[in-house]
This record gives sequence, C-alpha cells and structure tokens, in this order.
Amino acid sequence: MSVLTKYIRDIKDFPKKGIVFKDITPLLKNPQTFAEVNRILFEQYKQSKIDYVVGIESRGFIIGAALAVQLKAGFIPIRKKGKLPYKTIQKTYDLEYGTDIIEMHVDAVKKNDRVLLVDDLIATGGTLRACAELVASQGAELVDIAVVVELEFLKGRKTLNPYPLYSIIKY
Amino acid sequence: MSVLTKYIRDIKDFPKKGIVFKDITPLLKNPQTFAEVNRILFEQYKQSKIDYVVGIESRGFIIGAALAVQLKAGFIPIRKKGKLPYKTIQKTYDLEYGTDIIEMHVDAVKKNDRVLLVDDLIATGGTLRACAELVASQGAELVDIAVVVELEFLKGRKTLNPYPLYSIIKY
Repeated sequence: MSVLTKYIRDIKDFPKKGIVFKDITPLLKNPQTFAEVNRILFEQYKQSKIDYVVGIESRGFIIGAALAVQLKAGFIPIRKKGKLPYKTIQKTYDLEYGTDIIEMHVDAVKKNDRVLLVDDLIATGGTLRACAELVASQGAELVDIAVVVELEFLKGRKTLNPYPLYSIIKY
Repeated sequence: MSVLTKYIRDIKDFPKKGIVFKDITPLLKNPQTFAEVNRILFEQYKQSKIDYVVGIESRGFIIGAALAVQLKAGFIPIRKKGKLPYKTIQKTYDLEYGTDIIEMHVDAVKKNDRVLLVDDLIATGGTLRACAELVASQGAELVDIAVVVELEFLKGRKTLNPYPLYSIIKY
C-alpha cells in the first residue's frame, strides 16, 4: 500500500466545497502503479471463478475492465439513468440531498452467475450498496465488492453490510 | 471481424429518434469476444512503444484500460467538462446543435510522449478529432487512434484527417 498512496493526490473542495477528493489519475497514469493495482486484484480473485466483473460508471470501468481481461471474465457496466441503450433494471438510492438512479441491462446477469463488483473508491457506500442490490436482485452470486480506495471514516463498509468489501488502500 | 459482429446489437432510436445505436455491451459481456478485441488491439500495438493509452469517457475507458494493462502502458482519461478534479486543458468542439467541451488533466501528457487514443466507436468523428487535437496540443506524439467500431457512412475517418485511424469492425 505504501508506494501506491504516493500516486493518489488530494484535491480540496472537489466536487464541492468541504470535500477532499482522492484523485487516482496519477496512479492510473504510472504504468508500474496501475499494473500493481491490477496484480493485487488479480491475485485476490484468480481462484474465485468470476464469470463477470461489473464496473460502475465511470472510474469503475477503468479498474474493472482491466481486471476482467486478466481474470478472463466478461465485463458488465452499471451506469447512471438513461445511459444504457437496451432495456434496463433500475435502483433508486438516497443521496445527501435527493436521490439518484443507477441502471444495468436486464440481460446482464442471471441466477447463479458469479459476479465481482468493482469501483475505484468507496466513500459513504450508497452507490455501491445500490449496485450490490441490483446485482443480487437478479439472483446472481455477488462474490465480492472490490475497490482501490476505502475512506474508512465514512463507514461505507458498514453501509454495505451484509455485502462484503475488499479494499487495497485505506484512509 | 465476422464473429464479433454477432455480439453487437442495433438499438433503434437511441439516444434519440432516427439513430441506430451500436450496442457493444454483449461483446464486452462475453469473455471470448472481449478477450478477442483486446488481443487484436494488443497485436496491433505491441511493437509501438506506447507510453500512454488515452481513453475517452466512458466506453473508451473500458477498451482503453484493458489495453493499457496489456501494453504495460499508463492510462489517461479524457472526460466531459467538470468531471476531472485537477487542473485541466480544454477543447471545445461543434455538435449537430451547439457545442461540447472535453478536458484532460494539464499534467497528463507532455512533449514526445507516445500516445494511443482509444474509444469504442467512431461516428462523425467530432469528439475523437477534438481529443486528438487536445493530445497534440501538448506536443505528444499521437501514434494512432483505435476504435472497435467504425461507422464508415458517417465519414469520421475524413474528419480525423490528418490524424490516423485504426478500426476493428466497419459498418
């Protein structure tokens, strides 16, 4: 973990005042650190018989797609409402103010598919929780939820419970 | 090309009336076809000494990130205005109605970096042209532009000229 954190920079007041955003673009840009993240995740799941990596728009696409190729799994996107072209299933979830909706194609996962859900970061866990429920609603087996960065002080792991969580870097 | 096209479905009237959208999610979902796309792109560029794969939000992230890992290159995102957290350079480009703005981090690429620009699809080529100009404006060497699907009847290749284009599947 130590060397990877040098490639994550703090951006103050993004996306809004008072939030310190963890910017992983330096980590993705450096071939060694990007490869190291992928190696860690591959080692973690290479024996898990993952059928599909489900990545969350849009930084989850970067981490998830790279991992899917290595695991020889398929890749499935979860996106914000209105972005997926085919018939979708939806999940509405609460934000600090108001609600948001995420979608997955109706034919994306089915009963007993072994699924790994991937995003770049977990904060409060609201979006990941909604995504986990969306996957589970189809009868698929959610093997794990993997993120690069976990902001432990926001207690997203508790919000996800009973869904599991694996994170590489903890703050 | 033949087998891959079976995994691309036509969605009528998406994102708006009169447009037939090429949906590549079945291709990404199938581990064999997703791997095949990655294999073709890897073979195409494995000798090209690519420093960075630049992927365009957000389906370009899926194709580009998977390729970057295989090429042992870094990954850099180009996003819509306001999505990147750090200081950015921008490019405004014309749409059918109005304009759009894409952004890249100011420290993403520099002079003489060997860059491969990746997206899932080229239609009219307006977005890809803007991205190519953004990369070139930093003095980086744009080795090639790679897409999975080219809609030839929309003449995006001509719009990109003199920037190069490689596509796997042509319609």
